[in-house]
Amino acid sequence: MKSIDVGILGGTGMVGQHFIRFLQGHPWFNLTWLGASDRSAGKKLKDATSWRLDGDIPSHAAEIVVSDSKPSASAPRLMFSAMDASVATEIERAFAEAGHIVVSNSRNHRMELDVPLIVPEVNPGHLAILHAQQKNRGWKGMIVTNPNCSTIVLTMALAPLAQFGIQKVIVATMQAVSGAGYPGVASMDIMANVVPFIGAEEEKMQQETQKILGTFANGVITPLAARVSAHCNRVPVTDGHVVTASIEFSKKSSVADVQSAIENFQSVPQQRQLPSAPLKPLAYLPQADRPQPRRDAMRENGMGVTVGRIRECPVLDIKLVACGHNTIRGAAGAAVLNAELMASEGFLD
Amino acid sequence: MKSIDVGILGGTGMVGQHFIRFLQGHPWFNLTWLGASDRSAGKKLKDATSWRLDGDIPSHAAEIVVSDSKPSASAPRLMFSAMDASVATEIERAFAEAGHIVVSNSRNHRMELDVPLIVPEVNPGHLAILHAQQKNRGWKGMIVTNPNCSTIVLTMALAPLAQFGIQKVIVATMQAVSGAGYPGVASMDIMANVVPFIGAEEEKMQQETQKILGTFANGVITPLAARVSAHCNRVPVTDGHVVTASIEFSKKSSVADVQSAIENFQSVPQQRQLPSAPLKPLAYLPQADRPQPRRDAMRENGMGVTVGRIRECPVLDIKLVACGHNTIRGAAGAAVLNAELMASEGFLD
Amino acid sequence: MKSIDVGILGGTGMVGQHFIRFLQGHPWFNLTWLGASDRSAGKKLKDATSWRLDGDIPSHAAEIVVSDSKPSASAPRLMFSAMDASVATEIERAFAEAGHIVVSNSRNHRMELDVPLIVPEVNPGHLAILHAQQKNRGWKGMIVTNPNCSTIVLTMALAPLAQFGIQKVIVATMQAVSGAGYPGVASMDIMANVVPFIGAEEEKMQQETQKILGTFANGVITPLAARVSAHCNRVPVTDGHVVTASIEFSKKSSVADVQSAIENFQSVPQQRQLPSAPLKPLAYLPQADRPQPRRDAMRENGMGVTVGRIRECPVLDIKLVACGHNTIRGAAGAAVLNAELMASEGFLD
Amino acid sequence: MKSIDVGILGGTGMVGQHFIRFLQGHPWFNLTWLGASDRSAGKKLKDATSWRLDGDIPSHAAEIVVSDSKPSASAPRLMFSAMDASVATEIERAFAEAGHIVVSNSRNHRMELDVPLIVPEVNPGHLAILHAQQKNRGWKGMIVTNPNCSTIVLTMALAPLAQFGIQKVIVATMQAVSGAGYPGVASMDIMANVVPFIGAEEEKMQQETQKILGTFANGVITPLAARVSAHCNRVPVTDGHVVTASIEFSKKSSVADVQSAIENFQSVPQQRQLPSAPLKPLAYLPQADRPQPRRDAMRENGMGVTVGRIRECPVLDIKLVACGHNTIRGAAGAAVLNAELMASEGFLD
Repeated sequence: MKSIDVGILGGTGMVGQHFIRFLQGHPWFNLTWLGASDRSAGKKLKDATSWRLDGDIPSHAAEIVVSDSKPSASAPRLMFSAMDASVATEIERAFAEAGHIVVSNSRNHRMELDVPLIVPEVNPGHLAILHAQQKNRGWKGMIVTNPNCSTIVLTMALAPLAQFGIQKVIVATMQAVSGAGYPGVASMDIMANVVPFIGAEEEKMQQETQKILGTFANGVITPLAARVSAHCNRVPVTDGHVVTASIEFSKKSSVADVQSAIENFQSVPQQRQLPSAPLKPLAYLPQADRPQPRRDAMRENGMGVTVGRIRECPVLDIKLVACGHNTIRGAAGAAVLNAELMASEGFLD
Repeated sequence: MKSIDVGILGGTGMVGQHFIRFLQGHPWFNLTWLGASDRSAGKKLKDATSWRLDGDIPSHAAEIVVSDSKPSASAPRLMFSAMDASVATEIERAFAEAGHIVVSNSRNHRMELDVPLIVPEVNPGHLAILHAQQKNRGWKGMIVTNPNCSTIVLTMALAPLAQFGIQKVIVATMQAVSGAGYPGVASMDIMANVVPFIGAEEEKMQQETQKILGTFANGVITPLAARVSAHCNRVPVTDGHVVTASIEFSKKSSVADVQSAIENFQSVPQQRQLPSAPLKPLAYLPQADRPQPRRDAMRENGMGVTVGRIRECPVLDIKLVACGHNTIRGAAGAAVLNAELMASEGFLD
Repeated sequence: MKSIDVGILGGTGMVGQHFIRFLQGHPWFNLTWLGASDRSAGKKLKDATSWRLDGDIPSHAAEIVVSDSKPSASAPRLMFSAMDASVATEIERAFAEAGHIVVSNSRNHRMELDVPLIVPEVNPGHLAILHAQQKNRGWKGMIVTNPNCSTIVLTMALAPLAQFGIQKVIVATMQAVSGAGYPGVASMDIMANVVPFIGAEEEKMQQETQKILGTFANGVITPLAARVSAHCNRVPVTDGHVVTASIEFSKKSSVADVQSAIENFQSVPQQRQLPSAPLKPLAYLPQADRPQPRRDAMRENGMGVTVGRIRECPVLDIKLVACGHNTIRGAAGAAVLNAELMASEGFLD
Repeated sequence: MKSIDVGILGGTGMVGQHFIRFLQGHPWFNLTWLGASDRSAGKKLKDATSWRLDGDIPSHAAEIVVSDSKPSASAPRLMFSAMDASVATEIERAFAEAGHIVVSNSRNHRMELDVPLIVPEVNPGHLAILHAQQKNRGWKGMIVTNPNCSTIVLTMALAPLAQFGIQKVIVATMQAVSGAGYPGVASMDIMANVVPFIGAEEEKMQQETQKILGTFANGVITPLAARVSAHCNRVPVTDGHVVTASIEFSKKSSVADVQSAIENFQSVPQQRQLPSAPLKPLAYLPQADRPQPRRDAMRENGMGVTVGRIRECPVLDIKLVACGHNTIRGAAGAAVLNAELMASEGFLD
């Protein structure tokens, strides 16, 4: 595949920095453009922002001159959006209308009926709704979204279990502070503490999960009828979200069935060997005390989700623990894998 | 009430130190005796152990000469047990047989049919099974137990909801490292990390909750038939356990009903004004992000449990968050309050 | 002593909250007034601010209606200042000019020649410069300041060593996040990390130490000629600053001399039994691994400083470790003890 | 260079695991042998130990059958020693006597007069004392050591400053918990806390620094006459030690001189392009708040040391901050780089 130029909307923020780092050395995508507010426009990235991630700012990106966030002929067609929800709605639409392919990590358009909300291993077929989107809206471009970080971890773990008929899911999360951006959570609030609340997170997790696990037919995505209940908690962890889930199925299924389904899970990104796809999307660990964020979140460059502790639930049927990297698998890497999936389907041609 | 001499079995360990600290200045109980292994016997406490808690070793306790863990005429009748599970079974029995009233924080005897497992605000009436215990076993003394730290927090929050007919409970815990004793959890294992497993904790939480919420009639404790499922997690918090729970009731009950029941909860320890009883056993906080361990665990000297986020659960009926201090309300304070309840019933006369 | 009404300038901020908490139940001072920005004025405290400290907002203070930050006849004469440095200069002056006694924790006026910078155990005599201040400035009121949190810990430890002739001090601090206010340090910056820089802290520590240890004579404070070098670091600790110091003296002095001087240190606040004065301003701990912030910062209600590890320094003469509570001994409690000292000298009559 | 088989003494412990991970994919050294106690001997590594590091046990090493810790013809000539100090003295000697080249991370032999204590960028010439060692002891093999983790960070930063004539160094460390092995520091001791003491660390840092910065002539290593004073502290950081240092020189040298010397530092490992050598042994960062362990410790795969905040010291001449990875640059990587240096000098031929 020949190199594809890409840009990042919201390129100076914390999420933008995660995109910059993830795109370093990408075999298909070549970062050439960064969009931000007027305040940053005209400056080199290295002068427009403080690098907040571990290590140094990638030298190639450091020299890119930041543009304002308006569509233009000189901007690349493929745009990752790392914009804050407060501004993403209008700007993403403007870019899509002007012909850009907007692959967004922002929450703004996720729940719109003709916007695909994709986890490539879970619902790659939902991309097909893009034809309806372009027709409905008269756009030359399009908007594709990935879900919330905690939802990705959950739906990855649930994907191979769909065959058993998911009826009910009760999930409790323990989420890392890096999910809250910068400055994000004050250290006074989270050191040696738990905050049992993340604004709007539970609602997102409940609704997005239903949409992602839903079916696409006749141009319509029908959400899964399963009931989902989330308890979302912030814990003093740097990177990596942990999800504990109890699940009820319509079909009788044993611990061994569930474990086997998880261990053997493969999907479209693996079959097509997409560059950011993990070899094993789900790693099953037999140890009693795994997965753990510090030890498991970086599995497969942060793109693999780790599952453990599959056991019977006295209330629903099965319970388990899943863990994934919230800013890689749950954000920047998620969007990049979405774009790779789109490339493999010809959407970027 | 005139002062009652008390001893602590396992007085040199971490749990023993929590007892020593909690008993400082107690209006009824006067610490005069500490039992430990032969290795410590004969030494003053200050020479037999390193003080692991914040602040300094209480000066009165520091000078007590440690005894070996054998019943004797010179040992006080009322004995708190802070012994490790590996040795508690035989020693507690020996003391009870010899006429001591053993108020134990150890797990060993909790699930025996004629041993009361007491949370004074929840099931004070279960103490009555002690008559059967003495008769069955031919003991002059007795053994009374308190549950696991996380179970106490859960059952305190559930107590006022029993009126709605508890059917199902799914709970996820985030537990502080102080619950694991000393040295307990290695810092390499828990710093910026979550360990989604605590040995035997889930089983204890499931079974103990059923027993505590059970009914006592005709000399028998019948466990509550509710199904309970626990996900127990260790998080990098110093003190204070957080419990998120989804609950199903047999009677229709609204968020307002549950909130009102929790806010207005009072029980026997409050009515009798037991010295360690919190004025409000359950504090309800309306803020979206509470309770939190660092901010709420010490409520009412660590004896109050804080509840928040009462809301509808899409899968079961209601969900909420509860938080309590694991080494005070969940351990040393729990046992001392049990002894106060026993005193108020005449068991110590 | 009859009760003295007091107010707090900057009463809604983080430092203001520390003052509110520290003043609860004070035997001399009765909090009746809170000043803040126009935005908060007219609201009850509980509606004007979010309570950020552990536990709940004190109920008495919660109902105080916040005033704007202008001197008025109805405001108490004694004012504690918890204002941000960005606004403290002019407002403190306005209150002092209008006759108020401003006891400030802000850094703005600390280094002015006629403003006393007081640690009551260290340089109580410097209060006498207030006569010059009133005369110089034509004020009916006055401004008194306490130093930076880390400087207080250091100067408390140095005070009894002044007799040996302090020549050189090299100090490295490990400072808690609570010293940075709210939201203060982002959790992303400090979790499992060290930040070896705190803005302007090293300069403050170097200059303030010289002024505090200086001599007052003929209406002039002459700074100590000792050279002081500080390395200031932020570490992931909630409360309590640790200071490691190497010290060179002009007089030969052994480890035993230094330890004895520290153990036996008593000063004016102890002699006068000021209500917030610790019984022992300096506690010496013989254990090799003390003092530690989590274990020692709350000594004597957070007003005592703990010293340990006194030993020979291969480069200078002696090295030691000191620890104190940064928001109590190092801020709110420091200012309140200053006001108590002033009361005992008749400045509040 | 053709592949050289290597073994690890103490291969099942925490330090051994760091060696195993560091040696994965090494271009010269091929791990074929692991020695441990009799209890582990005969088992595959994966059955003999729990993997404590992040991620999974390397698959190649997992299958190696552990040997007992006795020299044998079948064991590789080159042996890394990761043994605990309690057993290293005799076993390392036995292997050296039997002809093995023991490259040790243990402290036992470091200060012996004819044992080189090497940091390859600092004192590569000290290897020449090995000829004296073999002669003195009649060994066919040899023992080479690397210093303590904190000493490596300090001496790396000091190396380019030797030209200015180092006279005095006062250093305060903030050290990560991974330096204490497993289980190492109890979480109860270090969470939200500082422990201002690490057993024997200050003495090691003071003496080892003098030896490393010393001169080798006429078959004798003469320690540097500089005086070194260390304050060693444990802080709640996972990986990466921070060192703050004040330094006095015999030659007048400005901040710019010191910065230039550090920025331009290159040494033998760089000139010879040893595989584990960092391209820049010292990275200088101009930002006011760097270096930081979480952001900088992994520079150059954990082998680079980062320096910042070079400024004048009011007491000595210059002060600065340095940071390095304690288990890579400070332990396993240090020993492997020592072996690479030895290979480049022909000691492994």
